[in-house]
Amino acid sequence: MGKDFLYNKIANGIASQIRTGVLKPGDKLPSVRRLCEEHAIGMNTAKRVFLELESRSMIDARPQSGYFVSSTPYLQLPLPAVSKPSSMAKNNEPDELISKVYANMGDDHLTLFSISAPSGDLLPLAKLKKDIVHATRELKEGGTAYEPLQGNVNLRQVVAMRSLAWGGHLHEDDLITTNGAINAVSLCLMALGKPGDTIAMESPCFPGLLQLAISLGFKVLELPTHPTTGLDIAALRKAVPKINLCLLVPNFNTPLGSRMSDEHKKEIVTLLSQHGIPLIEDDIYGDLYFGNQRPKCCKSFDTEGNVLWCSSVSKTLAPGYRVGWVAPGKYKEKLLKLKLIHSISSAAIIQEAVAGFLRSGRYENHLRQLRRTLQHNYQQYVQAIADYFPKNTKTSRPQGGLAIWVEFSKDTDTRELYDLAIKHHISIAPGRMFTLQNQFRNCMRLCYGLPWSEEIKSKLKQLGTLAKRI
Amino acid sequence: MGKDFLYNKIANGIASQIRTGVLKPGDKLPSVRRLCEEHAIGMNTAKRVFLELESRSMIDARPQSGYFVSSTPYLQLPLPAVSKPSSMAKNNEPDELISKVYANMGDDHLTLFSISAPSGDLLPLAKLKKDIVHATRELKEGGTAYEPLQGNVNLRQVVAMRSLAWGGHLHEDDLITTNGAINAVSLCLMALGKPGDTIAMESPCFPGLLQLAISLGFKVLELPTHPTTGLDIAALRKAVPKINLCLLVPNFNTPLGSRMSDEHKKEIVTLLSQHGIPLIEDDIYGDLYFGNQRPKCCKSFDTEGNVLWCSSVSKTLAPGYRVGWVAPGKYKEKLLKLKLIHSISSAAIIQEAVAGFLRSGRYENHLRQLRRTLQHNYQQYVQAIADYFPKNTKTSRPQGGLAIWVEFSKDTDTRELYDLAIKHHISIAPGRMFTLQNQFRNCMRLCYGLPWSEEIKSKLKQLGTLAKRI
Repeated sequence: MGKDFLYNKIANGIASQIRTGVLKPGDKLPSVRRLCEEHAIGMNTAKRVFLELESRSMIDARPQSGYFVSSTPYLQLPLPAVSKPSSMAKNNEPDELISKVYANMGDDHLTLFSISAPSGDLLPLAKLKKDIVHATRELKEGGTAYEPLQGNVNLRQVVAMRSLAWGGHLHEDDLITTNGAINAVSLCLMALGKPGDTIAMESPCFPGLLQLAISLGFKVLELPTHPTTGLDIAALRKAVPKINLCLLVPNFNTPLGSRMSDEHKKEIVTLLSQHGIPLIEDDIYGDLYFGNQRPKCCKSFDTEGNVLWCSSVSKTLAPGYRVGWVAPGKYKEKLLKLKLIHSISSAAIIQEAVAGFLRSGRYENHLRQLRRTLQHNYQQYVQAIADYFPKNTKTSRPQGGLAIWVEFSKDTDTRELYDLAIKHHISIAPGRMFTLQNQFRNCMRLCYGLPWSEEIKSKLKQLGTLAKRI
Repeated sequence: MGKDFLYNKIANGIASQIRTGVLKPGDKLPSVRRLCEEHAIGMNTAKRVFLELESRSMIDARPQSGYFVSSTPYLQLPLPAVSKPSSMAKNNEPDELISKVYANMGDDHLTLFSISAPSGDLLPLAKLKKDIVHATRELKEGGTAYEPLQGNVNLRQVVAMRSLAWGGHLHEDDLITTNGAINAVSLCLMALGKPGDTIAMESPCFPGLLQLAISLGFKVLELPTHPTTGLDIAALRKAVPKINLCLLVPNFNTPLGSRMSDEHKKEIVTLLSQHGIPLIEDDIYGDLYFGNQRPKCCKSFDTEGNVLWCSSVSKTLAPGYRVGWVAPGKYKEKLLKLKLIHSISSAAIIQEAVAGFLRSGRYENHLRQLRRTLQHNYQQYVQAIADYFPKNTKTSRPQGGLAIWVEFSKDTDTRELYDLAIKHHISIAPGRMFTLQNQFRNCMRLCYGLPWSEEIKSKLKQLGTLAKRI
């Protein structure tokens, strides 16, 4: 994405001033001529600076007036508190709540703010269909035969190639394909842990990961997590003697959208490796960054093969395809054995089709567009929350991904809000879903993977009205 | 399949005489005229009797001579012994052996007698492709969205409809779709058992099921199993106080191809239900019967919802599609929860495509043809074994399914035979794979899902020569 070009460097500088508040919404930017003088650059470069900032929705052009800092972007509401899960709490699953909320999956009559997946309207459906048809032609026996156990080689090749972008340096042989990332994580947990083991995770955390750990008989240790910088490393360091495994979502962890710094990633990898604690890294949101550059992963700093890096196309391309993978480092043989035992092989056609799509370069174009759309959506959501939600509503500041974490005042119970909202055909994800403890009752997750529209806006308004009422 | 027509009844009578040896290979059958007189039927009916028997490969027409009992069919070698697994043996997984054999999966340079799946040459590839393309058009958002948790409704409907054939009387709401049958069994085991539980299974048994149980921390109790009538019920009855779960393949259990009688099925269902022991029934081979009628399942006799019936299209249509399902009876909610946790949903497009194929009636035509081919292949294999294998080689007499169990004399170690055969590009499945105990070292499984040819015949000849050598 041309991160080394001069125009991009200058744009980043201005973006940083907007983010830190040096430049405020509505502020006029220097003229093109002025920019040329300031940076000793040509007209074309100066124009590209503005185009770049515009494409990031950070500035707006006003005819015959020049460029202004957008009024919507980087509108920031106060941050929710850093979570303080108890290290002593017994795991207490919010079973019924989760069943209730997930039962809505695929219901056309609802506005599903609850599901963290991109809407089909944001996906390259026609092109994917072509790749499916192509795959049925290309594959031996039309894809009806069992695949090699490690999975489709084309898919593994292209995932390995793409890992360069985040410093992964993977080889196709380092990867095993799976039925979506959750299946990858499931295999990792089964391979590395046993009932009674303790696993450290972020808090709040994706309910599916919590449920998975519980269903395998693990004890989950939820750790304090900052809404923007992610896991509290000091807490992890303290927990190390008590844990057998660690499962993290360092990039745009749902529901917070937090992003761990590279320094922290490196520190965690070293810490866990020293103590022989395997790190399962769920990186399904990694490609949905709002900044300029694909963030690194913990796997980027893994010299010992102790990080099991899991990802998929479920959040970027096709949730319903169930195509994922894992780079399990030194645990590869264990994973392969479990894959054979639990699923024999993956659906060949779909894997081949995704490999075709990823390889063609269409994926990069699609991702660029998707990231822009999601960032724009996020900004619209924040604006709507500011406009319609109760005063003192706090929100996380996702730096990528698909969801925003909303914290109401203490007396708002989002389980009640759920029941109320569903009557108005709106589905939300109450905060209690994202923990095994008695936390987050006044929080909820909103997904902004739906295409922005006046209807979505009015649904958010309605939701805000309901939140004020309870 | 017209099982109630007069011609069919008469054909069954003659078939039974052939099977029991009243009529022997090469015997001349009565003439058409004679048959008319004997049964007081018309010429057309009599002719249909012979056509029917011919279509079952039981008789051959010889020009101007009449009909004769086929020389190949129902050639029967002596039966292997009833297994005698120990009830005290510690579970001892044949890990390395299994890894070695499964590593060959998909290797084009080998003759894979080891893989129990139909070759692509026996599958309706072109029609399946069309159904895939159709599915990408029909599905909401081209199949990229998450499905409803229970799985594709069209697939569930058609599986429910087809259950009438074996007395299942299922409703679409009774079914949950999965990634192949092994995933269905995996969910059942996770839902119903916990580490340390004891599970009763047939012996010999499909290695994948043994591995699955072991990987979940179960203790496997292998039970004596007859090569044609299946599980020894007296042994199960005796084991009941010690077991928590039971996992059976009553129809054409691989590697034996045995088939449990309806009486035994009913008896087992009642016995286990009385003791509150859930029965997981793996019925992946049920549609591949060699007789006239789809055999019943244990599920056919399940009035309490205690049988979890699992099946798939992996052995009949497309192994690589990973489309399976389970009718979990009263355990449905538990299963649904686990499906959500471990895989979220199944690959939508493939399920829709399979539903389309099954619904069209093409499936019945395909199955009829496939059954005929497999039965024919099986007969050719027996003939080749009789011709080329060491004297005293015994074989099971599969009544359906894809594989035959071969027992050599005591001093033959099939692990040695494997190593020898693989050098000649032949892969077999040594008997030790099918047990957790020290059994079956002189046995092996041969799959007859490859299209019969002179090359296959010569590979069997070569295998026989190698077996004689060691």
